[in-house]
Amino acid sequence: MGSEPGKPNDPAVVLLSGGLDSMVAAAIAREQGFRLNALTIDYGQRHRVELDAARRIAAALECERHVVLPLDLTVFGGSALTDDIDVPTGGVGAGIPVTYVPARNIVFLSLTLAWAETVGASDIFIGVNALDYSGYPDCRPEFIAAFERMARIGTKAGAEGAELTIRAPLQFMSKAQIAAEAARLGLDTGMSWSCYAPTAAGLACGLCDSCRLRQKGFAEAGIEDGITYERNRG
Amino acid sequence: MGSEPGKPNDPAVVLLSGGLDSMVAAAIAREQGFRLNALTIDYGQRHRVELDAARRIAAALECERHVVLPLDLTVFGGSALTDDIDVPTGGVGAGIPVTYVPARNIVFLSLTLAWAETVGASDIFIGVNALDYSGYPDCRPEFIAAFERMARIGTKAGAEGAELTIRAPLQFMSKAQIAAEAARLGLDTGMSWSCYAPTAAGLACGLCDSCRLRQKGFAEAGIEDGITYERNRG
Repeated sequence: MGSEPGKPNDPAVVLLSGGLDSMVAAAIAREQGFRLNALTIDYGQRHRVELDAARRIAAALECERHVVLPLDLTVFGGSALTDDIDVPTGGVGAGIPVTYVPARNIVFLSLTLAWAETVGASDIFIGVNALDYSGYPDCRPEFIAAFERMARIGTKAGAEGAELTIRAPLQFMSKAQIAAEAARLGLDTGMSWSCYAPTAAGLACGLCDSCRLRQKGFAEAGIEDGITYERNRG
Repeated sequence: MGSEPGKPNDPAVVLLSGGLDSMVAAAIAREQGFRLNALTIDYGQRHRVELDAARRIAAALECERHVVLPLDLTVFGGSALTDDIDVPTGGVGAGIPVTYVPARNIVFLSLTLAWAETVGASDIFIGVNALDYSGYPDCRPEFIAAFERMARIGTKAGAEGAELTIRAPLQFMSKAQIAAEAARLGLDTGMSWSCYAPTAAGLACGLCDSCRLRQKGFAEAGIEDGITYERNRG
């Protein structure tokens, strides 16, 4: 959870979903001088256009390596993002939504750990965000802290003294601040993808939680979003 | 880490590698009355005969469901169990051996969590063992405790109050005690597989750490092992 920048040229592993948040988190890692190993999980998500976005971003950020790892979480079921459950479009509600994928960030962070140990990286970047976070428990700061502690105890690197650190630079930013950070870093936000339910024409729906949070963020920041929405609800 | 038995007929998720320890852990879960969901990870291990062992055991223990999940950890490299690194056969040494697979139990437990949340299971069984454990950091009791704590914070089930529990019933048993436990439970130990480096004839090598620990355990318990070794070093 440390926020101090890493040593220049140290390797880092970055979880890159292809969304706005992971793009900004990866760009921050790069700005801090890390050499980027980007990991994207192909977990059977419905919004597969995200994977193309991840590839575009990895190339644009000059990641040293980009691994797209297939992991079929649909065998377990249980989420509107992987199952035949409808993605809600009625607005962001209270509680944990049906788009929650069971233990997703736990599984994904575990995989970054496996790679980090292999390349000798002590730093893992993830674009989780505790404010506009749709109510997912695995985005909370106390989760990130508990994961980091577990990682230091349960890995060879940690047992041998490496200070494995889960860096979540967007942790306390609003979506508006993230949009502003993207602009400051000179990122083309059109490279990223956030929509849970792309339309047949390949546009962002503008109605799902993820589109609503993103649109609201850009509107509040007074910055134009690089992607096109089918419906614009601001 | 609780050791009290679960309520009869509750679902549990069991990590089933196909080895002796996971077989005994699964049989203990069954004896305690849990309905078993067995998860085997096909992670590109060299000793693929383990997967067949897992299938035999899942059938024998009447698991309600057995998922063999492909997960290609070879993309990260870094272990004699998945890479072109020779498996050592010179005896169990000090320190963490080259057969350590980076973050393996962290990744595997994370996947059991995803399934546990989906089926509403609060109990996860893993056959880790802190005594004859080959020096892996992710087999230590403090790791299991840290993982459990992280899981309760980072999952929907945990956030909603479920007492997610990682049960490691073999935690403090010696290999001899595990062999005796297998006998007590009436298990055919020939169903299980432990060898890291099976011979061309499909026999256990008898020389790798895993074979040595297993043979020593059965010898100390005075129980005959159901599998056949190419070389018997006791």
